[in-house]
Amino acid sequence: MLHQQAPGVPVVSLFSDLTPFDIEAAAYLLPACAAGFPPGTVFLCVVDPGVGGDRPGVVLQADGRWYTGPNEGLFALLARRAQRVSCWQLPDVAGASASFHGRDVFAPVAARLARGGPVPGASADVEALLRPDWPDELWRVVYVDRYGNVISGVRASAVDEETVFTLNGHGVRHARTFSDVPQGELFWYENSNGLLEFAVNRGRADDLLALRAGAPINR
Amino acid sequence: MLHQQAPGVPVVSLFSDLTPFDIEAAAYLLPACAAGFPPGTVFLCVVDPGVGGDRPGVVLQADGRWYTGPNEGLFALLARRAQRVSCWQLPDVAGASASFHGRDVFAPVAARLARGGPVPGASADVEALLRPDWPDELWRVVYVDRYGNVISGVRASAVDEETVFTLNGHGVRHARTFSDVPQGELFWYENSNGLLEFAVNRGRADDLLALRAGAPINR
Amino acid sequence: MLHQQAPGVPVVSLFSDLTPFDIEAAAYLLPACAAGFPPGTVFLCVVDPGVGGDRPGVVLQADGRWYTGPNEGLFALLARRAQRVSCWQLPDVAGASASFHGRDVFAPVAARLARGGPVPGASADVEALLRPDWPDELWRVVYVDRYGNVISGVRASAVDEETVFTLNGHGVRHARTFSDVPQGELFWYENSNGLLEFAVNRGRADDLLALRAGAPINR
Repeated sequence: MLHQQAPGVPVVSLFSDLTPFDIEAAAYLLPACAAGFPPGTVFLCVVDPGVGGDRPGVVLQADGRWYTGPNEGLFALLARRAQRVSCWQLPDVAGASASFHGRDVFAPVAARLARGGPVPGASADVEALLRPDWPDELWRVVYVDRYGNVISGVRASAVDEETVFTLNGHGVRHARTFSDVPQGELFWYENSNGLLEFAVNRGRADDLLALRAGAPINR
Repeated sequence: MLHQQAPGVPVVSLFSDLTPFDIEAAAYLLPACAAGFPPGTVFLCVVDPGVGGDRPGVVLQADGRWYTGPNEGLFALLARRAQRVSCWQLPDVAGASASFHGRDVFAPVAARLARGGPVPGASADVEALLRPDWPDELWRVVYVDRYGNVISGVRASAVDEETVFTLNGHGVRHARTFSDVPQGELFWYENSNGLLEFAVNRGRADDLLALRAGAPINR
Repeated sequence: MLHQQAPGVPVVSLFSDLTPFDIEAAAYLLPACAAGFPPGTVFLCVVDPGVGGDRPGVVLQADGRWYTGPNEGLFALLARRAQRVSCWQLPDVAGASASFHGRDVFAPVAARLARGGPVPGASADVEALLRPDWPDELWRVVYVDRYGNVISGVRASAVDEETVFTLNGHGVRHARTFSDVPQGELFWYENSNGLLEFAVNRGRADDLLALRAGAPINR
């Protein structure tokens, strides 16, 4: 992630430990996580089961932020939900390695965008990014953080606060945040990225709920 | 961690793998680790069992370095040991998430301080930071690094060099550093942050001593 | 890693999870990984079984890139393969800790080089870096990445494309990249750093081949 304006551009690594090859999980995390970054931020995003194949590289401008990466569905929800989207298709890069397009194709593009340079590609149809068959909310675990908090691909705004989930024999009710429930108690809440998350005050929800990354969430 | 003066401020992540919720361990590590950084360095420090609660956020200037984070004891030893300390209490931030004050409250404050801006808060009593009941040295394991070195919350200067620890059936004597003992041998020494550390030349002290983060150290 | 020219120098961490103490593995990875970085890049490299001992610190300029670290063999292959090499020996640093020369000796040197300052040391003989008894290719696993890809210390250019490796009962043939073989299939290829790598399309080669970091590779 690179900021466009700064002369010394900070580079920040987000989520270097996503589930390998799970593009769909990443596609639902990306718009949630990107929303807090300022306009002009450049995101380099690669989840790449088809590495080395001929899936096209793209650049995306969505609501003022820039994204680049392989177009295998990763930008589908971002494009679906954005107010304003533009898309470009990247040309082939001569001399790129067969397995590390993050370094050889997308990093140079991200750097160029971060410096304010022109988009190196031809304007493309936003349709190419969309996956009309993917749901609006993904009822799966998309990430488990190092505290054992279980993050779903569902926007919390899509869930009624009265909802009680039954997971691994536990009834899980809504709370505003960790400190609002007793120590050791399970709850669900809207996390800091707007997603439905299951958590335990000072404990591990993944262990209590027996939920790992990728697992379905029973409604 | 941000440096104040540089136009392109380097951001460095220290200790992203501390024991969750163990404020006390972090409170004894912090002054040891911070001591090597130049004046003007800004530290953003969060160990947060009470996330979302109403514990106040603070800014601290101690011996020329800046710190911001939730005041739940994390700055107690830093404040106790510093020659010069000033403290400010942060105002509530409208629109902050209920669970990620590191991002919504403390990061903006750290960035402002790193740019040389004024402290955004009201001057507060340093007493609020102190924990008079906490000991001067913490006889616990506060961190195990990836090599298996066992780091305590005890300053090595508080330990006589003749001391022989008996841990898991091993008598552990002092040495200056790794290369001063035979391969595979246990020793204790003053680590690069001034703390009492147990180590093995080319081996793992945590396994040999059966000591994990949080464990008490028998004197 | 620091870039020399930029006023705000980006600092990037590469391989913070190498096998502890395995200098040889690192020595074969280093020239492969460094090759992609621009002239003037500064590498701070420490793999340090002899920490605290009196092995000399060095600065190396090889094919326009800078390196600093302890001279225990880590720079042997880099020096052997480079077109142009110069070497300097670092003086002792007064007040350096006995166990963290990465911080106290080498980081200040790297920072000075990154700012374009003079090399702080006396010119030394490049011979001191070489290990004439080490092979040109290291037939061992030097790194396993988080996807389970098995990276060797052998340059792929030294292997005939017709070669079929027999590993853990599997015959492993060459392919250009992941997407060129069916899902779940083993193959070997020239990775993005030019090294011989064993991989599985959407699977873990380390598990299938029962190969861990350090293991010998049967030819």
